[in-house]
This record gives sequence, structure tokens and C-alpha cells, in this order.
Amino acid sequence: MPATKAYAAENATTPVVPFTIERRNPKPHDVQIEILYCGVCHSDLHFARNDWGMTVYPVVPGHEIVGRVTAVGGHVKKFKVGDLAGIGCLVDSCRECDNCKDGLEQYCSGGAVFSYNGNERDGSGNTYGGYSKSILAHEDFVLRISDKQPLEAIAPLLCAGITTYSPLRHWKVGKGTKVGVLGLGGLGHMAVKLAVAMGAEVTMLSHTAAKETDAKRLGAHKFVLTSNEEQIKSVTGYFDFILDTVSAEHDYNFYLALLRTNGVMVCVGVPPAPAVIPAFNLIFGRKSFAGSLIGGIPETQEMLDFCAEHNVVSDIELIRMDQINEAYERMIKGDVRYRFVIDMSSL
Amino acid sequence: MPATKAYAAENATTPVVPFTIERRNPKPHDVQIEILYCGVCHSDLHFARNDWGMTVYPVVPGHEIVGRVTAVGGHVKKFKVGDLAGIGCLVDSCRECDNCKDGLEQYCSGGAVFSYNGNERDGSGNTYGGYSKSILAHEDFVLRISDKQPLEAIAPLLCAGITTYSPLRHWKVGKGTKVGVLGLGGLGHMAVKLAVAMGAEVTMLSHTAAKETDAKRLGAHKFVLTSNEEQIKSVTGYFDFILDTVSAEHDYNFYLALLRTNGVMVCVGVPPAPAVIPAFNLIFGRKSFAGSLIGGIPETQEMLDFCAEHNVVSDIELIRMDQINEAYERMIKGDVRYRFVIDMSSL
Repeated sequence: MPATKAYAAENATTPVVPFTIERRNPKPHDVQIEILYCGVCHSDLHFARNDWGMTVYPVVPGHEIVGRVTAVGGHVKKFKVGDLAGIGCLVDSCRECDNCKDGLEQYCSGGAVFSYNGNERDGSGNTYGGYSKSILAHEDFVLRISDKQPLEAIAPLLCAGITTYSPLRHWKVGKGTKVGVLGLGGLGHMAVKLAVAMGAEVTMLSHTAAKETDAKRLGAHKFVLTSNEEQIKSVTGYFDFILDTVSAEHDYNFYLALLRTNGVMVCVGVPPAPAVIPAFNLIFGRKSFAGSLIGGIPETQEMLDFCAEHNVVSDIELIRMDQINEAYERMIKGDVRYRFVIDMSSL
Repeated sequence: MPATKAYAAENATTPVVPFTIERRNPKPHDVQIEILYCGVCHSDLHFARNDWGMTVYPVVPGHEIVGRVTAVGGHVKKFKVGDLAGIGCLVDSCRECDNCKDGLEQYCSGGAVFSYNGNERDGSGNTYGGYSKSILAHEDFVLRISDKQPLEAIAPLLCAGITTYSPLRHWKVGKGTKVGVLGLGGLGHMAVKLAVAMGAEVTMLSHTAAKETDAKRLGAHKFVLTSNEEQIKSVTGYFDFILDTVSAEHDYNFYLALLRTNGVMVCVGVPPAPAVIPAFNLIFGRKSFAGSLIGGIPETQEMLDFCAEHNVVSDIELIRMDQINEAYERMIKGDVRYRFVIDMSSL
């Protein structure tokens, strides 16, 4: 079992620190990847600090992983040594349930295996994520990565990209759709870029006036300051689709009112408190309030290919591995435009 | 202005009593109907007692109206004297907004005119509903009624029927769809009949074991007692679509857990307290929580034609006009199978 350099949180209150993990030797269907870059997702922080009460320590976060293939098992067909490759939030699933058969491994009813803090299906223990030198996964869970785009800016597509791409596709956003994006962070900035690339009319909804310039630079056609009554009035009953990327507590009803008849609001962020919604706010206008979780493997590949074709990547700030704790503090303050990515050569 | 016998609530605390209203003379596009039967909807009771705080007194409830045409204006093309005809929840709308153009007059952004407690668009005052001898409406808001089914049992289709038909159609319920119906009352019993007629597999979800016999008689393929853990376990992650007809307070999350991936739960009842839903309960499984309000005029006609073709009517208990207050008390206790209909010849 090869020892592998990594960074881990050993409990909820201490920093993420250097740590050595053991990775398995490649099995016949495994692809082994030297990790070159790993994006830093808000979930990493939530798991490091056990915000959701489900962390198994030590935890090695990181599920926006890109790198180069260094070894393949004897049965691997899709990758060869030297290829670029990526791993997102999933490294395995049951492959037998209806969801897996439909390419929706993230909803696997047998239990999807997440890239970190996941339980290997063979009972071999906990999964460790991308804050490490290398990782292995069954080839079915390894993504092809374009060599036409900056590799470090592709990394965040593996979670922030697919999390926003999947609901936009599922609810058929495209030319003629009026889309509102709520929250301009890691997820929100990808939502703007992707919805614009899909041909939609995109409005950034934000309570921070200073974000207008950036929103427009990212491609948003309109900017609505949510504290401005006149501006809110101009988009009341306006949107076909709102993608809500906000994880802080907020009043969903305020935004449901901005939907037109048959409108759908999808939340991908998880605020600490539940949504409180009077039935009338959905009944008048046949509105839907929905959720969406990352995306399955086929759709993640589709998203990567779409981004390569439309020249979409994440706006990133590259950091060294030893800057991770400082990065977490800046994320909490919203001080990141728009995704930290770790240069793993610094480990 | 012809004086018309009616029954009205004059304030929130006194019974519904005999009352004389003035109806207009037919305008060129008006159809005048002698009301033969009028269904009794829970909304009638809510408006009579000002439960929603929006009643304008005196209120003449009733929006499940069937009868015979007694006069038509000079420009009326669709009806002639002697025809059977019906009026549901709507008697007018702006006809110009996108929703009206799409046949979704119930969501008219110019302001739909409801059959009672509505505001006439010409400023002539409040609308009065079906607890009366006659009613008039523009021919565009008058429905054709089949002479092949018992007229008194058709009446409830105008609200209970369309309220359940519309979401079943909008979310494409049909052969192969696993439908759960929550609540076996006026709406729920129509939902079972309609979903069965559409070819779906229908399960009645109820906390009252005694309702199983009736649910099966109405056509439900399965009955799940919601207090029985084993039975609930057997339908966890099972339904494509749940139609929630319950107006009493209940935990929506309990039922969201019964949806499979991509499942939709639609509420048509309005409980006194808002829904409280953690985002996780929608995110895991890409589930939707939605609302729906009656249906537009074209779809209401489609529903009436569908019911005539599939021999679907409401299960009713016929009452005299002077039994209305007693009927309200019995509705509050849930003591009705499944819709009271007033024989208007008793007025």
C-alpha cells in the first residue's frame, strides 16, 4: 500500500495539516492519477469542521481533482499513462439501481461513494480526497479532460461546474429562457457563465452593488440589486428559472415572487435553517421549488466537453497547499473570486 | 336589474341565509344560466367565515355550477337557450396577458375574476356565486356539459375535478406513473378517479385505516396507512408524483421521502401554517415541491370532455339549500363522501 502525502483535518477544531495516507495499488479497472490541481469547495470546509455532523476523521478533503494518469490496471480501456484525467465528487456507486442505470450515480440508492469521507463499497474503509499527491478510481468514474484549456481553471468544473450545469440542463434552460442567478460565489459565477453559454438571458441577483461589474464581465445580461425596490419590481414575475446558490439563511419567498407562471427555483446551496414556504406562494403561478445535487458521471463528462467547446472555465486564485487554512478563512468572509485552486506541486 | 334569490353570508360569524341579489341583464356575449345544481367546496366555507381574511360581505359562495341556458346575448355563438352549461371558479380575466393567451386564465396577471368574491372588471362590483337561482357570464367562461352523465355529479368537476386534473396533466401523469394521493376528501377522491382514468398506478396515502375500502372502490390500486411503519417503508422512494390535497397542517418532509429521484409533490390544499422544508430533502433526489391552482378554461373543458369519455363523476350527497350550514359543520368533521351538492330547486 503506497504511502501518499496529503493534508487532512484530524478533528473539527484544528487546522488542516500535513498527513500521510495509504492508497491502494491499482486494481484491474483502476486509473491512478498524479494530482496537479485541486479546487477548494465550500463542502471541504464544512467537512473539515464537521458542520454537517457526518465527518469521519481524519478527513482529506478535495473533490475538484485534475491531473495526469500515472498507472492503469490491466483491464482499463478508456485511459493510458500520460493522459489528462479528472475526478469529481464520486468515485464509485452500486451500478445496479435505476439511478445508476440512468447515469444518475449521485442519487445511487445502493449508496454512492463520495470522493472523500465516503465508504468504499468493498469495506476497505474511508475515501480520501484531492488534497493529496495522487488518487485512484475505477475508470468508470474518471473523466476525460481537455488539453485546450488551463488545467488549474478546469478543476472547479468537477464540482462547481456540474452542480450548476446539471439543473440548468435538467430544467431545459436555453435560448429564450430568462434565468436568475442568486449568489455570486464559486457556484454562482459558474452558473452565470454556463447559462450564458447555453443561450439564456441571465440576470445576477445580488445584495452587493459592487458585484455588478464582475457579474457583467462574467456575461450576465442584467444585474438586479435585491435591496432596490424599483429593480426588484422590474423583475417580479419575470424569471422562468432561478438558480439559488446561496448557503446563508435567506427568505425563499422573496425570490419565488420573481418567478413567472410555471417558474422553477432550484436550490443547490444548503442554508443552516429549512425553507419556510406558504403553499399559496407556489399555488399562485404553479411554481416549483426544487433541489439538485452535483450530476452523474455521463453528465459530468458532457459538461466538461461543453465547457471545452464553449471555452468556459472557472475564475480562480491559485494557492499553495500550506495556504489552505487561510483560504478557508477568506471563503467564510466571501473573499474569493471565485474559486481557490491548490497547486499540488506545492505539497 | 333582475332580483335573484340566493343564499349569502353577511359576516364571518352568522350562518349562510336567504338573500336577494341583483344580477345584470345579459350583455351581447353573456350566457344566462338557471342553476340546477351547485357543489359545495371547502373554499365556500373559508370565504363565508373569512378564514383567509379576504372576504367582501355579503358573499354568495358556490363555484361548481351546472344548469340550463335561459337566455343568450346577441353575439353569443357557443350556446343556445336550453343547452346544459357550467361555470367554475372563473367568470372573467384580462384576456391580454401571456397567461390568458396560454389558456391559463387562473393565473391572469391582469387579475382573474373569480365567480364569487371577485371584482368585476367593469367596476360594477362584487361577483356572486352559485348559491343562487341564476348566473351570467361571458360565453368564453361558460363550459359545455355532457347530457350523458348525472348532472348533479358533474357539478363538483368544475372545481374539485379541474384542481386535481390540471396538475396530473401538467406533470404528465399517465401509464407507468406511480402516483400517490394524499387525503381522501372532495379533491382526493377526484384525484384517485382521474389518475386511474389516465392509466397511472394509484396509491391512496391516508392515516385512516377505515378509508381503505372506499379508496379501493374509487379505483386506487394500493392503500398505504401512513401510521404503519412497514407500509411506509414499502413506498419510501417509490412515487413519481404525489398529489397532496390536505388542508390540515402536516409534515411535507414525511411525504417528500416517499418520492423517487426526480419526483414531484404538488400541493393543492392550503394548510394554515407554511411548509418547512430543509434543502437537503429536495437536493438528494432532485425532488420538486410545487403548487397548482384550479385550471384554465380550455383545460377545464378538456377535463369535462375527458370525464364524459371515461365516465368519471364525483361521489356526492345531495342536499337542500337550507341544509348548507349543517353541511359546513359536517365538512369540518370530514363527514362527507365526498362532495355535497345543493339541489337548487330547493331554493
